[in-house]
Amino acid sequence: MSRHYLDWNATTPIRAEAKAAMIEAMDLAGNPSSVHTEGRAAKMLLERSREKLAAALGAEGADIVFTSGTTEAASMVLAGQGIHCAPVEHSAIKVWCEQDLEVDADGIVTVTDPARTSLQLANNETGVLQALPEGLASSDLTQAFGKVPFAFNWLGITAGFVSAHKLGGPKGIGALILKKGVEVPALIRGGGQEQGRRAGTENLVGIAGFAAAAEAAQKDLAAGLWDEVAARRDLLEARLMAIAPEARIAGKGARRLPNTTCLLTSGWKGETQVMQMDLAGFAVSAGSACSSGKVRASGALQAMGYSDSQAQSAIRISISPALGDDQVNRFADAWETAYSRWRERNG
Amino acid sequence: MSRHYLDWNATTPIRAEAKAAMIEAMDLAGNPSSVHTEGRAAKMLLERSREKLAAALGAEGADIVFTSGTTEAASMVLAGQGIHCAPVEHSAIKVWCEQDLEVDADGIVTVTDPARTSLQLANNETGVLQALPEGLASSDLTQAFGKVPFAFNWLGITAGFVSAHKLGGPKGIGALILKKGVEVPALIRGGGQEQGRRAGTENLVGIAGFAAAAEAAQKDLAAGLWDEVAARRDLLEARLMAIAPEARIAGKGARRLPNTTCLLTSGWKGETQVMQMDLAGFAVSAGSACSSGKVRASGALQAMGYSDSQAQSAIRISISPALGDDQVNRFADAWETAYSRWRERNG
Repeated sequence: MSRHYLDWNATTPIRAEAKAAMIEAMDLAGNPSSVHTEGRAAKMLLERSREKLAAALGAEGADIVFTSGTTEAASMVLAGQGIHCAPVEHSAIKVWCEQDLEVDADGIVTVTDPARTSLQLANNETGVLQALPEGLASSDLTQAFGKVPFAFNWLGITAGFVSAHKLGGPKGIGALILKKGVEVPALIRGGGQEQGRRAGTENLVGIAGFAAAAEAAQKDLAAGLWDEVAARRDLLEARLMAIAPEARIAGKGARRLPNTTCLLTSGWKGETQVMQMDLAGFAVSAGSACSSGKVRASGALQAMGYSDSQAQSAIRISISPALGDDQVNRFADAWETAYSRWRERNG
Repeated sequence: MSRHYLDWNATTPIRAEAKAAMIEAMDLAGNPSSVHTEGRAAKMLLERSREKLAAALGAEGADIVFTSGTTEAASMVLAGQGIHCAPVEHSAIKVWCEQDLEVDADGIVTVTDPARTSLQLANNETGVLQALPEGLASSDLTQAFGKVPFAFNWLGITAGFVSAHKLGGPKGIGALILKKGVEVPALIRGGGQEQGRRAGTENLVGIAGFAAAAEAAQKDLAAGLWDEVAARRDLLEARLMAIAPEARIAGKGARRLPNTTCLLTSGWKGETQVMQMDLAGFAVSAGSACSSGKVRASGALQAMGYSDSQAQSAIRISISPALGDDQVNRFADAWETAYSRWRERNG
């Protein structure tokens, strides 16, 4: 059976440019900390990758610290800092913060003390985009990077977090972006790598893949590829609402990522829908991948005022430029079949 | 000019088995935390890799927590614990410990309180092997893994640290091995991955490469490949001592890794030798890669009683099964040329 992947926000396939860069990096035998020819060649790839990533992020002149992903970058910056955030943040942020910021029905967060706040640029479940206030302490840029245009240097924030696997790079590599001059104590210590901010021999294959993926993703974005995704998302949402007029799309009133639909069909468990869609050949999710398998409802949706029953019915459909109109229609057809059965059983 | 790599302890080229596993893993699009088909396929690769690594480590039944390497694993276990260690440990261990254990002239460490001590199995600079006392808190197994036989389950230790890139796996992936039932608070938080011990989407490509490399390395070891390396190391050391009878080989009186020679030629800076050998086509190092580029002498050698002048003259030659007698002889020839010039200038 053919499979259709509509879970782009959970993770993306590795794009061809990244694969090629990774395979090339595999042949560099040296340790970037070694001073001999092999070491210097590895160091050069490391620093070129850093420059490429900085360019893709609009973070030229800022400090890029390679980490194993957003979760590590957030742990470095947020642990023990008493930072405020909203319940719509990813668990990698929430775990370290006071979740005391207000969220409106469309998922928009009110920030009261920017210098002591972490606020995501885009939500992973609903796709809702936030306007980041000037002087914000930090922002989880993971879901926005590669899907909507931004430049770190223009955001007016002190620190940003990104992961490669959300834009066609490999899993397990990401970065902390720091405004020039900002210091963060190392979490992982015992070597001088990353200017003493993150010890340990660098994940060179992952870093090369990240940089290549980021560069290619930014080219796609500049070429307008994601405008087509938004049009396809609109087609999908129109079809879903025609099938189930009582359903709700979380954050529909806000600016959102071009690819993300969070659909609530109160009373019909999201987990059940995910299983049924999987059997029908479609990968979607109920909430973020990181909370998958857990039965509790999304804190993000509850913060937006949805009931437990509504929040537990959520499925996230996150599409990509690789997905055509035909696949979107096939998904809507399959969902319609499952929805009709559920309606029949539940009168 | 042909190049010869004699810096195996700094990092190894990625072996063919690992490359193949990594390239295969690149095609798994799913997130191991996702419950759909793509997610479950990724999860299966993750868990199979964990089992493969456990088998290679002789750690069946123990807990394997994938980390970005030994440095991260050590930070997880050692930070804030007031653990004792000797100055011969790698900086990833030393940074967290009281360096108060005694070291003899051959590099052997005396442990007084095993339950509060971290002791390496093999030294990265000299190759000296330690007999780990029963009940040891933790051990840096990084340099030993793949070069000498051991089984984690028979070592009688609570925690072990390993990195893939020392045995033909990629850089930036490693593991913490924990005796069953031992808990360690997560350093990187915000997701349930690795049984809550290490949050963040897993480096699946790296993990697949690590497992494949470990399995292949253990096969090589069982087949006796490293006995040949020891014979070649003996040839190298005989030639070097014939060229410079006043030179010293650190730890020569102790059991050592089969591939490591730490050569001291008092008065002739190790860094200078590394540069000259590099120009002649040979990659060697002065101390560990992590401390390369720093002028200070090795703490490990000073702890063994060597003078500053001796310690600063150290070069580490670490060979591999890929290196033939011919290359070892060519290295000795090149070193002889440089040595003769140095002797002439320094009368």
